[in-house]
This record gives sequence, structure tokens and C-alpha cells, in this order.
Amino acid sequence: MLQTLKTITVNTNNQNLYEITDNVLSILHSSSIKNGLLNLSILHTSASLIIQENASPEVVDDLNVYFNKLVPMDSSLYKHNLEGKDDMPAHIKTSLTNTNLTISVKNNNLLLGTWQGIFLFEHRISPQQRKVHFHLLGE
Amino acid sequence: MLQTLKTITVNTNNQNLYEITDNVLSILHSSSIKNGLLNLSILHTSASLIIQENASPEVVDDLNVYFNKLVPMDSSLYKHNLEGKDDMPAHIKTSLTNTNLTISVKNNNLLLGTWQGIFLFEHRISPQQRKVHFHLLGE
Amino acid sequence: MLQTLKTITVNTNNQNLYEITDNVLSILHSSSIKNGLLNLSILHTSASLIIQENASPEVVDDLNVYFNKLVPMDSSLYKHNLEGKDDMPAHIKTSLTNTNLTISVKNNNLLLGTWQGIFLFEHRISPQQRKVHFHLLGE
Repeated sequence: MLQTLKTITVNTNNQNLYEITDNVLSILHSSSIKNGLLNLSILHTSASLIIQENASPEVVDDLNVYFNKLVPMDSSLYKHNLEGKDDMPAHIKTSLTNTNLTISVKNNNLLLGTWQGIFLFEHRISPQQRKVHFHLLGE
Repeated sequence: MLQTLKTITVNTNNQNLYEITDNVLSILHSSSIKNGLLNLSILHTSASLIIQENASPEVVDDLNVYFNKLVPMDSSLYKHNLEGKDDMPAHIKTSLTNTNLTISVKNNNLLLGTWQGIFLFEHRISPQQRKVHFHLLGE
Repeated sequence: MLQTLKTITVNTNNQNLYEITDNVLSILHSSSIKNGLLNLSILHTSASLIIQENASPEVVDDLNVYFNKLVPMDSSLYKHNLEGKDDMPAHIKTSLTNTNLTISVKNNNLLLGTWQGIFLFEHRISPQQRKVHFHLLGE
């Protein structure tokens, strides 16, 4: 059994989806593990991880608009507003998406569909430095 | 360490939940792995995976109705309508549910609760051929 | 390869988030596995698992309020009301959150962010005894 543990750092600037597929592939290709399970964990509660279409920028725009409508940045709706109007909505959007993703690795490649990319979904407005943990277990 | 990698093909016809528990069990029982972690990944961005009650067909009906109300098929709400009114809602519903599931395997069986089944959640209206990747790692 | 399989029992009383981080750590620290992947699976379809902020009780309150607004306990909206007005909403809330979490284990510790805790999200009103399966694979 071999294990590769690394951390990916992503600097974000406003609510958006930031594709990290290449960051993940870069670590994967430097590992000697051919087949195994890859776990990605975001170490925050106000940003999340999703796998989504990476061909059309309109999909990303629509996701941003939809999630801001579903979880309004209206402080009157929440008790927890310590860090601003985007604070509690960020926690809720994280709950509605994912903190962890587990992806199959085959022949030292990510087993993703043709149109799938891995995204960090930033839910805060102000710039943030985000940490995503990469843990691959296999042989 | 042993690994079993297979692909499950599911033909869908309209938005619905399609139970795939038996497809998963069939591959599992043909594997010699007794205990391990099973990752299921759907290789699409307009269909997803969920674990839900498989006893009452009303639960499935209600889930379909609820998700169509939560994410309306109203093209005026989205920029991305290339493949029809169900296109962008399909991406959003995928984001709100799961692209991957990781399930514990014990004694060559799925560790699921009494009422739990594994479903492919189809979000497109037109017929689709879907691929779900099965990756079991254990011994 | 080593594997540790255990079950965590959680008694719940009304809809709420119940932190189980200490229950998970207690099993982890009694295992001899240093590095690996930990899968947590809830064996029910009317309660779920999320990783959320564990510092502010207001976050927990706001999550409860938000999810009850997003998925109203209004029996006229659902066909499946066998076990009461919270029955179908419980299934939907489970679909919107997670049945499984996969967490990285490093140096016999959970790789969580500073503010992250693991919670069982109870969606039923009446008292329940919930089972969460712990499966750690590593060495």
C-alpha cells in the first residue's frame, strides 16, 4: 500500500467556482500510485468542492446566480452574521454541496467523465486562501 | 491489497430515480474482496447518485416533484439552455446531490441500512445511457 | 493493510445537529492505523451527516431554521406522509446533505480544518437511535 498526502492552496477573490482539476492532476502525476482512491477534503466551512461541467462558462455563472438566490445574503434571515452578510449563507451553501470528494484513480489518471472538472466553490466575498487536502491511497 | 474496477451502464428514460443496488451487488459478489471501501462515481454532470429509501415508491415520486420545484425548468432563469429547458437544472440538481458515493463493504456485502438503496438520479428528460464507475479497494 | 470497522450509536431527540467528532476520535485513537481513509456512513434515510462549523451555536440554529424553510413540513406537498409531517422532508433533507463522508486520517488524527466538526443531522422530531458506521482503511 502506498499513500500520497499533499495540500493544494487556492487563492480566491469573490464568490465563484475555481477549477482545480490541473492542480489535482499535477500531484497525481508526480505520485507513483497507479490505481487507488483519491480523497479531496476542503479544510473550511465557508467554501466547498463540486464536480461540474468545465466546458461552458455559462454553467459556472448560472450556478453562482442560482445558489445566491437559493441562499439569500439577507442578514435578517440569520442569527450568525459575525463576518458579514455572506457569512451564514457560506455555511449553508457548503452544507448543500460537499466538503469531501472521493474520486477513482486508474492508470495514474483521474476517472472523470469527458465534461467533468473539479471545482472549489468559494462562498465568501472577500479574498481567501483556501486549503484542499489531497490523500491518495492505492498501489 | 486488491482492487476491482468495473463500469455499470444504466439506460434512463425521463427524469426519475433508477435503483442500481442490484447492479452494484452483482459486481461486488463476483469480487474476491471481503472488506474494503467502495467508491461509485457517475461520469456525467446532469445525473447524480443518492442513497434513499427503496421501500416506498411515493418517496421516489415526492423527490422528483420536490427537486423540479426547487430547480425550476424555466429557461428565463438561466443563460445555459443549449440542450433545452432541463439542461441547466440538471447541472444544479447534480450539485445539490452527489457525483460520488463511498460505501463500506463488510463480509463481501454493502453496509447499508435496512431501507437504504442506491439510486441513479436522472435529471434529463430525453433517454440517456449513463456510466457509473465501480471501484472497490480492500482485501 | 489494516481495517477498523465499528458502529457509533447516537440517541437523538428532535431535529438538530449532534456533534459526533469526539465519538469518531475515540474510535480512531484506539485503532493502530496511522494513515488512511475513514468512511462514515449513516444507515438511515431520514438523518444525514455534515461537516460544519462547531464554534458558534448560532450556525447550528440557523442551519436548522434554513433547512425547515427550504423543505417545509407541510403534508399537502407530499404523497408520503406515513410517519408524520416530518417524514418526507426528512428524506429530502438527507438527499440535500450526505449519507457518507470520507475523511483523511494522518498521524492517527482526523484531517479537519480548525473550525470543522462532524455532525449527525437529525431530521425527525421523535426520539431516534441512530447508527453511524466507522470504516477506516490504511496502515
